[in-house]
Amino acid sequence: MAAYDRELEDGGPLGRTLLNEPVVMFKDSSGKAIALEDRCCHRHLPLSLGQVVGDNLQCGYHGLEFDSSGTCVGVPGQSMVPPGAGVVSYPFVQRHGFCWIWMGDPAQADHSLIPDWWWVEDPRWAYNTGAFLQIKCHYELITDNLLDLSHLGYVHTKTIGNSAIVDFPVRTERLNEKVRMSRWIQDRPPPPLYRAGMKNEDNVDRWQIVETEPPGHTVVYAGCGPVGAGDFGGPNEYAEGIRLRALNAPTPETENSTFYFYSHVWDFRIDDADWKKQMYDDFLMTFMEDFEILEAQHASIQRDVTRELIDLNVDAPGIAARNLVSEKIATENTIDAQ
Amino acid sequence: MAAYDRELEDGGPLGRTLLNEPVVMFKDSSGKAIALEDRCCHRHLPLSLGQVVGDNLQCGYHGLEFDSSGTCVGVPGQSMVPPGAGVVSYPFVQRHGFCWIWMGDPAQADHSLIPDWWWVEDPRWAYNTGAFLQIKCHYELITDNLLDLSHLGYVHTKTIGNSAIVDFPVRTERLNEKVRMSRWIQDRPPPPLYRAGMKNEDNVDRWQIVETEPPGHTVVYAGCGPVGAGDFGGPNEYAEGIRLRALNAPTPETENSTFYFYSHVWDFRIDDADWKKQMYDDFLMTFMEDFEILEAQHASIQRDVTRELIDLNVDAPGIAARNLVSEKIATENTIDAQ
Amino acid sequence: MAAYDRELEDGGPLGRTLLNEPVVMFKDSSGKAIALEDRCCHRHLPLSLGQVVGDNLQCGYHGLEFDSSGTCVGVPGQSMVPPGAGVVSYPFVQRHGFCWIWMGDPAQADHSLIPDWWWVEDPRWAYNTGAFLQIKCHYELITDNLLDLSHLGYVHTKTIGNSAIVDFPVRTERLNEKVRMSRWIQDRPPPPLYRAGMKNEDNVDRWQIVETEPPGHTVVYAGCGPVGAGDFGGPNEYAEGIRLRALNAPTPETENSTFYFYSHVWDFRIDDADWKKQMYDDFLMTFMEDFEILEAQHASIQRDVTRELIDLNVDAPGIAARNLVSEKIATENTIDAQ
Repeated sequence: MAAYDRELEDGGPLGRTLLNEPVVMFKDSSGKAIALEDRCCHRHLPLSLGQVVGDNLQCGYHGLEFDSSGTCVGVPGQSMVPPGAGVVSYPFVQRHGFCWIWMGDPAQADHSLIPDWWWVEDPRWAYNTGAFLQIKCHYELITDNLLDLSHLGYVHTKTIGNSAIVDFPVRTERLNEKVRMSRWIQDRPPPPLYRAGMKNEDNVDRWQIVETEPPGHTVVYAGCGPVGAGDFGGPNEYAEGIRLRALNAPTPETENSTFYFYSHVWDFRIDDADWKKQMYDDFLMTFMEDFEILEAQHASIQRDVTRELIDLNVDAPGIAARNLVSEKIATENTIDAQ
Repeated sequence: MAAYDRELEDGGPLGRTLLNEPVVMFKDSSGKAIALEDRCCHRHLPLSLGQVVGDNLQCGYHGLEFDSSGTCVGVPGQSMVPPGAGVVSYPFVQRHGFCWIWMGDPAQADHSLIPDWWWVEDPRWAYNTGAFLQIKCHYELITDNLLDLSHLGYVHTKTIGNSAIVDFPVRTERLNEKVRMSRWIQDRPPPPLYRAGMKNEDNVDRWQIVETEPPGHTVVYAGCGPVGAGDFGGPNEYAEGIRLRALNAPTPETENSTFYFYSHVWDFRIDDADWKKQMYDDFLMTFMEDFEILEAQHASIQRDVTRELIDLNVDAPGIAARNLVSEKIATENTIDAQ
Repeated sequence: MAAYDRELEDGGPLGRTLLNEPVVMFKDSSGKAIALEDRCCHRHLPLSLGQVVGDNLQCGYHGLEFDSSGTCVGVPGQSMVPPGAGVVSYPFVQRHGFCWIWMGDPAQADHSLIPDWWWVEDPRWAYNTGAFLQIKCHYELITDNLLDLSHLGYVHTKTIGNSAIVDFPVRTERLNEKVRMSRWIQDRPPPPLYRAGMKNEDNVDRWQIVETEPPGHTVVYAGCGPVGAGDFGGPNEYAEGIRLRALNAPTPETENSTFYFYSHVWDFRIDDADWKKQMYDDFLMTFMEDFEILEAQHASIQRDVTRELIDLNVDAPGIAARNLVSEKIATENTIDAQ
């Protein structure tokens, strides 16, 4: 994930480092989004300092123009474009409120691998796009954090921390291309967030299900329903009740910094603007508590990367997710080597 | 020296890099001071971001608790503590207004090696703890500075500089575990600092004696007395007159930065709060003049560490002190290798 | 070029890194300018933190004094100066409003190699000294920029950009020790800058001639005259008309940063103070547009110095100038090796 859709609303160009590579995004005259290498092939000025001219991106130094394939199609002051003049182009799709680009072998780009976060477009769900967050940590620390509910009582004491739930067990499943972590809480009072969505003050059954797939696309399924109204602990949420999803995609800027893109959808109070604003603020405030931890943790790990980490039971989902990523990388490297 | 006592008054935790290692200090429920490695063994968050819980330090991410020995004694959500879970613990003593820790082999920790700066606790002496100063220089540059009185006329022209004294010779002695530098000034008018403590305006005999012991504990003994009232130039200060000691302990944060801990004691005007305040301000202002020099000097040395330094006569005490430190390090390394 | 004359008006000392070496400049009691290594031979404090004492520069730490040859001529507190005590001295000339020093073999210093920018002292020309600019780029990027008129229409759209002239060809000549680039524009309306200097609104013939010699001394000769009043496209400017010269000397601070020294002279409206002010502001504003480009370009090149640069026709002068510098360096290295 390279950006929020809203960041390209003005047409760009928008320059950003992703996976240590300079990338520039813009829209052509038809509104189609394009991602190129953010470095003119001539004298290496970032193309993001230039401007969109028609369907092309024009360098801000000498006016070279590049089309959507990255090919240089015009050099002011000379009729011939030098052979080989061009920049890398990346497959680009806008979907579910996000900009997705593929920085590997273009032939391997597969839109079907983009997660199906259909709630964003469904009118039965309310939707909040996230804040722009750039964090000085490795992106897998964010996945660890999302898959770990045990930190809530220590990091989020001022927001969503709730020690009442730690007694309910966590279940980790390794699916084919995903890691799934779930915790079900039976017959308890609804927390403030859910009380606002239920019609009464009765106890509820609650679920927290987190699914992550490589490289770091993570959906948190959370909700609650009337006690006993569904298959408690089963694979599916209750049909009755209220539901919320947090959609997460931490994307590496470098080995030491990450863009944390996210959004939220929910199926209750969907026309309540105040509630929408409160959801935005509350989730951001909660994540800012993680922010401080994640940067301090990363800096501490980097002080001495040779030092051992001791694993706990709560780390099982995070370790499974890291293994899945490692396996994908190993597979890709094997394919590349053939 | 790891901190001023006052920095731990709130119980901590207080995180700080010392000798390139992360250290956290806190007090248990009895007020006993403890120093641990500032890095949780689980996911490496600095423990200084956590909180003191009873006698233990609790990690701010997942709630692991560590006792005064650094042993992990509790992991929320699981009954067993993983084998080997723990962090380094450092012997810790609070004495003379300072926190002292030992970061070498714990078996070699020897409280008797802490310098006896008894004046701090003696009611016949007034006492000022120093300012918190973090300097971008190697700690031995500070020892050099303290052992060198010849810079006063150039660096401290606005504060304590006094060219009248440069004609009196400096004597350097290498004692068993110390370097001692002394200068005696005969029958001169007292400088402003001393005039405020003497009962009259008569000329005085003055002494400036600096003793330093590895790694960088340096006491400046300064004072004056009536002309001829004692053994001028001898090993002891006059019994009559006024006395002042500057207690110094520059401690390396890294190779390129140092915490400069210090305090002052004096035996005149000991109940005068204005004088106490003026002593604090004057010494701080004087040191701020050194501060600028030391940082510029360190940066200049680091530009090219292969370049020769030309030695002068005034460098004899500093060189002797550096030799003493080098010998201690060589001895320790020999012991370690056995 | 090490500084503007005006920077030494107070006598110094003025410390500055040039070619990665620390340099300090000051004036002796007769006003003669001196350049020394900015690092005391004793304990390496930059001498620029000291002060000028008579004809010497005195270190701000221990008072060592250095004469114009860099020899240490005095050590406070000891009668003998240690053998070898001294710092490097650099040949120094003030000329044309600039300070010129020679940091190579002193025996090779040759004042006649200083470019003859006589207009600065000639009362028939008005003169503006430049702003102090420190740019995070390699100095040759500035030479490239000065030799390249094709960027005007992209970088300087808010100031001097003018697409009307791109149709006129550029001619590049490699002279013995110079690269000369010229463009002549025939029978066009004068741009605003020239309209202010001509007596009427008639069309003009214009010239833009840029001469650069190693390492990066570049003069821009620009002007215009009545249509057909001279040898259009010839080696000389028209005798009739108005003339302007931009004198440029980007000097490396390090491989990644440059001091950009410059000044302007012109032979019209020479007594008009408002015009002089406007010339200063307009040229500075124009260069600030380049400033942003040059820093972004340098950072982008440094991201991956192994990446190829594609050359265009407009790069011919810049490439020729770089070749000239490379040849000089190769020649010097050959001489050094003999």
